[in-house]
Amino acid sequence: MRDTQLTEVLRYQGDAASVLQDDVVVEEPLEIRVNAQSIGVTMRTPGDDFDLAIGLLRTEGIIHRIDEVGTIAYCADEHDPALRNIVNVTLVDAEKSIRSSRLSWASSSCGLCGEASLESVRRSVLPIQCSMTIARDVLSTLPQRMQEKQRNFKRTGGIHAAALFDRSGKLILIREDLGRHNAVDKILGAAMRSATGTMELIMMVSGRLGFEIVQKGAMAGIPVIASVSAPSSLAVALAQQLQITAVGFVRNDAMNIYSHPERIIHAL
Amino acid sequence: MRDTQLTEVLRYQGDAASVLQDDVVVEEPLEIRVNAQSIGVTMRTPGDDFDLAIGLLRTEGIIHRIDEVGTIAYCADEHDPALRNIVNVTLVDAEKSIRSSRLSWASSSCGLCGEASLESVRRSVLPIQCSMTIARDVLSTLPQRMQEKQRNFKRTGGIHAAALFDRSGKLILIREDLGRHNAVDKILGAAMRSATGTMELIMMVSGRLGFEIVQKGAMAGIPVIASVSAPSSLAVALAQQLQITAVGFVRNDAMNIYSHPERIIHAL
Repeated sequence: MRDTQLTEVLRYQGDAASVLQDDVVVEEPLEIRVNAQSIGVTMRTPGDDFDLAIGLLRTEGIIHRIDEVGTIAYCADEHDPALRNIVNVTLVDAEKSIRSSRLSWASSSCGLCGEASLESVRRSVLPIQCSMTIARDVLSTLPQRMQEKQRNFKRTGGIHAAALFDRSGKLILIREDLGRHNAVDKILGAAMRSATGTMELIMMVSGRLGFEIVQKGAMAGIPVIASVSAPSSLAVALAQQLQITAVGFVRNDAMNIYSHPERIIHAL
Repeated sequence: MRDTQLTEVLRYQGDAASVLQDDVVVEEPLEIRVNAQSIGVTMRTPGDDFDLAIGLLRTEGIIHRIDEVGTIAYCADEHDPALRNIVNVTLVDAEKSIRSSRLSWASSSCGLCGEASLESVRRSVLPIQCSMTIARDVLSTLPQRMQEKQRNFKRTGGIHAAALFDRSGKLILIREDLGRHNAVDKILGAAMRSATGTMELIMMVSGRLGFEIVQKGAMAGIPVIASVSAPSSLAVALAQQLQITAVGFVRNDAMNIYSHPERIIHAL
């Protein structure tokens, strides 16, 4: 699966011009079907497509356990059989209606929805009860640990990542995508597919901490969500309400804790 | 219109902990209606909402000239009359069907669509014919000029911007939003509303240069699109095909030109 692509680029550095081949992150559409019915298309970086499909179904609340899934497979694209840009997921309950989920998916994956309100999410997600803690000096190391494991960041300079860590700072899973939301869906799908419990893990994201990132984390029961970047007002409000610890600007030895700081403790 | 919000934050800097009030960028849903019919909701930073609504209708190809628009107004939100989160646009042609545009909008604003292919965009957008040029040393100054005019970046550290410049480097318009796509829609809507021709302007964006950013620029006839960040493979392919000059990693005196470098000239 190609996730970067060599592209000819005319590079200026001061007055020096050179033509070189540079790695660019690949962006291609992925159509996701459930029981052979299309539920949408997302622009993504190819790779870990099954994780992405399962993660989206999970963060949209369409599935809650992996044993609800029958099969996952690529479909042939009638326009170009070589393309692997359609994934079909069959559910064990073949009669399950996914019609009502369609709008909701559009909403939380991308910011467009029919009911993009705090209220609607609050009604559908339970507050996090987990009392786990993580030491502040461990949390401080996570951005660096994540970036060291990013395969494509250095080559392209343009790809997001999401990673799951345990409270000792051990990396459990990492996934990359040019879309922030996709990276989160991939990792939460990967966790579900590998039977990795997420309810005591920390999720680190490379991009901005927006409403939808917190909403997706909440669907997987994640107690601590951290970012090297800034949060939005609605992300903070949702995290406060759902009892999620939201941490922004984790850089060097500094961090901003926006909600439920009781899970972040001083080093022993 | 509040676009930042003071939020209590527990800040660690090394071992020093402090509780302070910090500015966070506001994220709220905006529902857009055309002739009183809802066509979608986007998560956005409040402010310039009429620009955003008009820009979206423009980049989706629903309108091509501002005189197709009758009125633009906020609607009262039945849940909370104080909220200004619904904008209704009436078209002069009140019978115009916008049904077919709905999916397309969802696609290009957020990466979800029914036909997210190069082919479909290529069929609907004409290649850019403009032979304008810009000097490389002028282009190099645009990121700095844009950031100096960003009202909210320094306060929140988490907001995107899009700006239009002329070939002398003069700033024509700038808009901010927590969403990259929204910032572009706001600026292209603002240009249409102020009768600012965009066919000889440079569009600078703060975020990644993805497929949809290039597609939106193409809908406004923008010949040069530049970013401080990385492009995607599909963005480069689309720019090449539509004869748009795509420039990435514009930093200090360096830049990468991915397509149609003939518009970037050495200083006189």
